[in-house]
Amino acid sequence: MPALANTPTDRDLTDWDRTHNLHPWAGIHGWRRDDYMRVNTAEGIHIWDHAGKRFIDGPGGMWCVQIGYGRQEMADAIAAQTMTMPYASPWSFTTEPAAMLARKLADMTPGDLNTVHFTTGGSTAVDTAIRVMQFLNNRLGRPEKKIVISRERAYHGSTYLAATVTGKERFKTRFDKADDLVRFLPDVNPYHRPQAMSIEAWCDEKIADLETLIAQVGADRIGAFIAEPILCSGGVVVPPPGYHRRTREICARHDILYISDEVVTGFGRLGHWFASQEVFGITPDIITCAKGLTSGYLPLGACIISDAVMERIAGPDENDVFYNGYTYCGHPVSCAAALKNIEIMECEDILGHVRRVTPHFQDRLRHIGETFDIVGDARGMGLLGCLECRLDPGNNSYARQQKFGAELDAACEDMGLLLRPFGNMAVFSPPLIITGAQIDEMFDIMEAGLTRLSAEYAA
Amino acid sequence: MPALANTPTDRDLTDWDRTHNLHPWAGIHGWRRDDYMRVNTAEGIHIWDHAGKRFIDGPGGMWCVQIGYGRQEMADAIAAQTMTMPYASPWSFTTEPAAMLARKLADMTPGDLNTVHFTTGGSTAVDTAIRVMQFLNNRLGRPEKKIVISRERAYHGSTYLAATVTGKERFKTRFDKADDLVRFLPDVNPYHRPQAMSIEAWCDEKIADLETLIAQVGADRIGAFIAEPILCSGGVVVPPPGYHRRTREICARHDILYISDEVVTGFGRLGHWFASQEVFGITPDIITCAKGLTSGYLPLGACIISDAVMERIAGPDENDVFYNGYTYCGHPVSCAAALKNIEIMECEDILGHVRRVTPHFQDRLRHIGETFDIVGDARGMGLLGCLECRLDPGNNSYARQQKFGAELDAACEDMGLLLRPFGNMAVFSPPLIITGAQIDEMFDIMEAGLTRLSAEYAA
Repeated sequence: MPALANTPTDRDLTDWDRTHNLHPWAGIHGWRRDDYMRVNTAEGIHIWDHAGKRFIDGPGGMWCVQIGYGRQEMADAIAAQTMTMPYASPWSFTTEPAAMLARKLADMTPGDLNTVHFTTGGSTAVDTAIRVMQFLNNRLGRPEKKIVISRERAYHGSTYLAATVTGKERFKTRFDKADDLVRFLPDVNPYHRPQAMSIEAWCDEKIADLETLIAQVGADRIGAFIAEPILCSGGVVVPPPGYHRRTREICARHDILYISDEVVTGFGRLGHWFASQEVFGITPDIITCAKGLTSGYLPLGACIISDAVMERIAGPDENDVFYNGYTYCGHPVSCAAALKNIEIMECEDILGHVRRVTPHFQDRLRHIGETFDIVGDARGMGLLGCLECRLDPGNNSYARQQKFGAELDAACEDMGLLLRPFGNMAVFSPPLIITGAQIDEMFDIMEAGLTRLSAEYAA
Repeated sequence: MPALANTPTDRDLTDWDRTHNLHPWAGIHGWRRDDYMRVNTAEGIHIWDHAGKRFIDGPGGMWCVQIGYGRQEMADAIAAQTMTMPYASPWSFTTEPAAMLARKLADMTPGDLNTVHFTTGGSTAVDTAIRVMQFLNNRLGRPEKKIVISRERAYHGSTYLAATVTGKERFKTRFDKADDLVRFLPDVNPYHRPQAMSIEAWCDEKIADLETLIAQVGADRIGAFIAEPILCSGGVVVPPPGYHRRTREICARHDILYISDEVVTGFGRLGHWFASQEVFGITPDIITCAKGLTSGYLPLGACIISDAVMERIAGPDENDVFYNGYTYCGHPVSCAAALKNIEIMECEDILGHVRRVTPHFQDRLRHIGETFDIVGDARGMGLLGCLECRLDPGNNSYARQQKFGAELDAACEDMGLLLRPFGNMAVFSPPLIITGAQIDEMFDIMEAGLTRLSAEYAA
């Protein structure tokens, strides 16, 4: 290899990334052939590629940059903590930011969710949550009560255990999963219900799916139900009204831990710190979070456990140890970033702002669904949105439908808006600081992109 | 709960941490009863607790703070990247720091290890490495070749899969592991060999252990061997000379992937970027690293894969996707911290410094072994050290021996030195910038602590 240049050229950086950086979800067929867009700078809701082209960041990083980019207060808080105390082993020590953030999260979460185990992101938070269930049932002398119920299209991360409870792309991957540890419930997306079925009947059917599975497997073999309040990577799927409350109640009845995976819905995406209680009226046993916790500025996650669960775990055995955790649990700089992020959200009333602009955002989304034939469903909640291609838009084939997300993203990219394509869907979750005018700009571009796509589909 | 105070008192912080922060390896019996020392500031090789007492940081954070604390250049580089581009989704984009660091790591690693998959720390790097082996063998049509060989006392992290291949505390934990996926080789610690046995015969026995296990299980069922070059959390166990080369050769012969877990030994601990090739003369198939990569200043890990493995993975199927990765893969701020950390190590010739001070460090360590009866073994390599209590120091019981680490740490703490206790051992791995005089100060305190302990043991 030639020596590293002091100042790499654009070409160098492209070559190095292609040759040496194996990205998540990289096409293996395209190994060392695919190039990724290189983003260089960012401010507010915008990012710029290396050629200087500006984009509205539709995906908000990846469902995470709540407070927007270019926050001097964040850089200052992060730099200050770096100078004061950049690292302390959580095995032996605590730090002011970790202690303050643990308390803050206990305050923000509903009910008796008061014990915080910090992790490095969402996957490790989910991995921990499931391990807590396993620990609990080993402690209670019922080691057979360990199966996790998850759902088709659910996304919970990509450690081996988090991937095990992930429904999305499950049958495509060459990676192993621990199939014995999990069962999946069918699709809960109301858009996919039979044409004649009411939303209420759909909800009844979904509840029956859960009850049937529990009856088949046996509640004495089921340890947990894990659920995103909205299945986000699965296509912003909002389960039917009443679904959350009824599933929660069933889990409680069978002593099945309810793990609410709020990695996306936490920290303001739906206008509240957490969605479980304030939006859907339930108190889970465990909440996992990450992403918006630091607005993505630094890696951090958390698994937050109820007092009721902790009291059942905390036995009399002096040798019993919570052998779970990482070098970077409660990393002081990441925790300082989270505290500043939360402070910014509080000072600027970003939760209130989200609640105020949500009706306009959702109106414009719904309008697209009513206006464009190629859009089968335009759904969302809070500042989450998804456009799903009509299941049969004219004579378009399945293969064509699967390209809808990428085609719409490409059309919008030309006009300065990034979306996140998922097969026959495109999703978006802009920074929460987006203004009403910027929401209009975003949807105007989307409509122009859909107009162009509609013409191509019709051709 | 009362509202959060604007300026928490010391008492508040202690209460909040005890009540809300569940630390790694926390005693479950002591849930909401145990307090952790709160460290407030740090500079060079020193940290200060909240009461203002100064300590030499013997464990170097947790085997990680290579460049020492309080580095203005790190704070500046981190703040600059935070302002420029604090987050970009690795699913869709790359950034200059991620591309540069991937290239840099490919340069530093031996042989054809040129493909970098960034993770959030060591556990997720190990989780990924094992999943890569599973993917490879699924792709090659030999799904039964998946068992991982690990070793007693090995520590590889704490996701479910990383904990599965961890030997340390294996039989104590209430957490589940996937026992079917792993087999363990017996202790390799030369100190534990029979009294009459030569070190060469011990090595032969350890090699025979591996060959026997492969013969018993069948090479067609074994996917990988995972090994720390030195078993660090297991007590700084340096396998006998020739062990690395011979185990590597056996793995190659049976097409068993050799995963070298360099989370601790990487980034200068033994005076080289990586120890596999430069210290032990082997080229692994996969190297995992974290910790020293950023000197612990920010969370980051990496799983670095050889071209040979990637070429066997990269098949012709267009739908084949590397479905592994995290929101925080290649986080631009973490990567910028790693680049600055590496630059500091290069500019200050920290690798050369480690090689220069190592003989003195190891001499003082050996001297302790020769001087104190209660020390059975004083071992180490580079800037890694461990003191193990003599197996039978006079009439001291097993229970007393198991407190040796904690008692020595407590004695040294009084005098301003922190160690890391592990049962009957105390380990240390100070920041790599430690000077010769500071090494003397550290060992002087250790000797004073051992003198005090010896008197107590004799009493």
